[in-house]
Amino acid sequence: MAEPSFSSIHEYIAKREAFINDERTLRREHARLKACSDVEAQADRIIRKIRKEEALTIWSEESDSIPHIFPGMEFLTSRDIIVKTKLFNILTKMPKGALLHAHLDAMVNTRTLLRLALQQPHMHVRVPSVLNSSSIKTMLPEFSVCPEEEWSSLPSLADASYSPGEWVKIQQARRSFPPELGGPQGFDDWVIGCLTINPAEAYGTHRTTDKIWKKFTDTFRVSIGLIRYQPIWSQYIKEFFLASVEDGISYIEARINFGPKTMFNAEGYNIVPGREWVRIFCRVIREVKQEMKEQGRQDAFLGARIIYSIIRIYTPEEMDWYMEECLALKQEFPDIIAGFDLVGHEDSLYPLTHYLPQLLHFQKRQKELGIHIPFIFHAGETLGDGTPADGNLYDAILLETKRIGHGFSLAKHPKLMDICKTKGIAIEMCPISNEILRLTSSMLMHPLPIIVNHGIPVVLCSDDPAVFGNMGLTFDYFQVLVSSELTGLTTLGQIARDSIEYSTLDYETKSKALAVWEKRWHEFCKEVVALGT
Amino acid sequence: MAEPSFSSIHEYIAKREAFINDERTLRREHARLKACSDVEAQADRIIRKIRKEEALTIWSEESDSIPHIFPGMEFLTSRDIIVKTKLFNILTKMPKGALLHAHLDAMVNTRTLLRLALQQPHMHVRVPSVLNSSSIKTMLPEFSVCPEEEWSSLPSLADASYSPGEWVKIQQARRSFPPELGGPQGFDDWVIGCLTINPAEAYGTHRTTDKIWKKFTDTFRVSIGLIRYQPIWSQYIKEFFLASVEDGISYIEARINFGPKTMFNAEGYNIVPGREWVRIFCRVIREVKQEMKEQGRQDAFLGARIIYSIIRIYTPEEMDWYMEECLALKQEFPDIIAGFDLVGHEDSLYPLTHYLPQLLHFQKRQKELGIHIPFIFHAGETLGDGTPADGNLYDAILLETKRIGHGFSLAKHPKLMDICKTKGIAIEMCPISNEILRLTSSMLMHPLPIIVNHGIPVVLCSDDPAVFGNMGLTFDYFQVLVSSELTGLTTLGQIARDSIEYSTLDYETKSKALAVWEKRWHEFCKEVVALGT
Repeated sequence: MAEPSFSSIHEYIAKREAFINDERTLRREHARLKACSDVEAQADRIIRKIRKEEALTIWSEESDSIPHIFPGMEFLTSRDIIVKTKLFNILTKMPKGALLHAHLDAMVNTRTLLRLALQQPHMHVRVPSVLNSSSIKTMLPEFSVCPEEEWSSLPSLADASYSPGEWVKIQQARRSFPPELGGPQGFDDWVIGCLTINPAEAYGTHRTTDKIWKKFTDTFRVSIGLIRYQPIWSQYIKEFFLASVEDGISYIEARINFGPKTMFNAEGYNIVPGREWVRIFCRVIREVKQEMKEQGRQDAFLGARIIYSIIRIYTPEEMDWYMEECLALKQEFPDIIAGFDLVGHEDSLYPLTHYLPQLLHFQKRQKELGIHIPFIFHAGETLGDGTPADGNLYDAILLETKRIGHGFSLAKHPKLMDICKTKGIAIEMCPISNEILRLTSSMLMHPLPIIVNHGIPVVLCSDDPAVFGNMGLTFDYFQVLVSSELTGLTTLGQIARDSIEYSTLDYETKSKALAVWEKRWHEFCKEVVALGT
Repeated sequence: MAEPSFSSIHEYIAKREAFINDERTLRREHARLKACSDVEAQADRIIRKIRKEEALTIWSEESDSIPHIFPGMEFLTSRDIIVKTKLFNILTKMPKGALLHAHLDAMVNTRTLLRLALQQPHMHVRVPSVLNSSSIKTMLPEFSVCPEEEWSSLPSLADASYSPGEWVKIQQARRSFPPELGGPQGFDDWVIGCLTINPAEAYGTHRTTDKIWKKFTDTFRVSIGLIRYQPIWSQYIKEFFLASVEDGISYIEARINFGPKTMFNAEGYNIVPGREWVRIFCRVIREVKQEMKEQGRQDAFLGARIIYSIIRIYTPEEMDWYMEECLALKQEFPDIIAGFDLVGHEDSLYPLTHYLPQLLHFQKRQKELGIHIPFIFHAGETLGDGTPADGNLYDAILLETKRIGHGFSLAKHPKLMDICKTKGIAIEMCPISNEILRLTSSMLMHPLPIIVNHGIPVVLCSDDPAVFGNMGLTFDYFQVLVSSELTGLTTLGQIARDSIEYSTLDYETKSKALAVWEKRWHEFCKEVVALGT
């Protein structure tokens, strides 16, 4: 702290600098900044220059469709502008390290998913009442595969003869989609609209956390029938891995919702258990690694693991069953099962304390079995102050969570912040998700800078990019970069590095991953410098 | 911190409770909670019960005009609902202690101000071009008094013969306001609209901090001509004090903008210097005290002081002049001049560093003169992270600010938070102001709970209630109360108590004020309990 008075302006300025520096040393990139290579320092300067230029040009061009434009504004309104910026295009090339908070059911572009589904002769669709120009606005399609003997010959979801709830083959439903609803293209748009959140919803009709969560949950009710079908499942995961690699992500810890217990096999029977899902997951990892190797890019993909996840809607007794499954899977796939989590809307579903006996028993069972499945809990994804959702943060930490999913309300907890810092509990921050789900109105109001400035480790995550449109990690890095003067390329580098550091990888693999990342980072910085000169 | 594992659920729950309690002890009301009188504890429970009931009833009744309703929502949209709640009506009776962040030019209801102005034969108004149904949408009235020999006989602002910029008597302008613009009532609405921010502006046309600040600044351009006229000035201050008293405020530190150097005297000459403004301020204090005494309510008003304020637009040399005036005023009115501040839009105007030589010189001059005028700086009223406005926080603290005005970005500064806590630098938080000026979209996103949970002293303030419609302090207390589960009546009590504690009152006066407040608080709690039973 400064002296009470200053003998000269020179003295003041020196003290001021030291004072500010003293606070900045808390930021995790501080050490990095000091030891920064020339090329990284230069790249950082170039990035800041471009950011400044684009703030004054691109981000000041208001229009009738976008009356309020600024860097870090609502993502769904600004996405088309973001992709055209120089900054975004540079960031696409940045090595992002690991993606640590990603719900598998929302990781593949919805148009790609629909394309995969349309190739499946077993895939059917139904609606709860005949489709017409009025009902289409509120009605969700339900997808499922049927075994061949049950294949439908119904002509259309919109036919007067359609009985609510009857299955129609997806291709047939699409072909026969009535011209007044846009024909086949209209079918696609309808389905995509039900799988994604659009700006009119997030910023208009559903402009509160509770309301947008209803729409958000609906998207999963639609997508589950498409994804949880074995032939699609494997293609879907591959698509996810490959697209991630193209975005600079080299390692993934995916949250898979094991709630449904089984998925449909190729023949259309709902009998494929969780262990088979994991087996396919492993096979796809091998395939993608092989593909990368063949392309001479083995450093681009270092693998993936699974965080076993269950929605907070079950009874404690049902939770027991899932925990036993998780233990069994960990024993069968020790390198793949990376953690356990309870997911879903914290404000309205059960808090962690609801499952306290189960959670403690789960830890005990692990000791008995000599295995370790860290909790990696969602906690504090809420605007609450002292609510049960906010209170989940205490339980997550008492239960020794490895990281915290979201931790949006963490800034309200001085003691927990200290613990996260001291014990190295990284916060999986999902800025675009938080904004679309209305925890914050823009990136400028997001608590991320608070957490970063306090020196708590942060990783950036896309959460559910298929629903939000923030595919990959570039969009989230972009939004964070343009919303803070303090944040620079070096900050992003530190966050990317921390995504590996705070992964569940074992020491040796992590060391290798870090070395690979450092090398790629240096190459990236060189590229940025080349661009800027 | 908790042990790594738990032998029983019972043990977990006990540790959890201790863990949470440990964090809660940081909150300033903690000591109060423990030593809480039965009646206060009971009142707190009643308030929580009412809050819960109203959240489920009043705050869930959506309508076409308010499609998204929730406690703590946008103030300008929900004001009419707030005033009807039981909670609000209880809080109007709460003893609020001191009002410590209040800009004098925006402290009196605009309709009252207009009424005062309409009584003044010297008051004139002009517009930059003839008023019609189109120009009225963007044109601001400018008010000023004229000496009798210059009184205007022009018929109307809307007359075809009106020459832009010519003065018209306010009464005449109102009387002749054309029927198509609403007649005299239309005149009033036009003026009020120019003196206040409406929901369509804050949440629609001006929905960014920069844009709403433009409108905000415009309101002062209009009001200055009405307020800075000696006969109105005294009535205005009296109205401010009396209305504050009715809202439970018993002491005020008002920021007065001394920028204009002179105001108009009764005869319409712009020659009344700052020392005369202060003299009138003192006279009104005496009058209001006398009135209170006559009503047997001498405890209701303990006085007022002035924070000498200058907008951050002047050159450093001009600032020298103002500082000398401030020193002179402090010597002449040692009990009235309470501090010095630089005010205005931090994001676009000069940062504190711009005036560094002046600020240090000002401190030196005080030492020479043997007086003390603490800085009470606006700082961090911004969404920035590392911007000059955010950086004002460092300078405020280095320059030993007594309190911080707004400190909206303080949560981004771990070291500064520590200093505020340790040194007892209270944050003058203005939640409704921040929301209307678009630093936060609702109270749920406001950083106040972060600051409170960290144990940093906070006082609640209305900032510019004439412009925002949050007259008194009840609205701000209401918004804070309904936006947090942790916050209860005892929290509000602590904040009110702290408003006296962190005032600039001397030890003896403060002790007396605290004792008076404690007595009134106890009476208030008793009233709440009586209501609840």
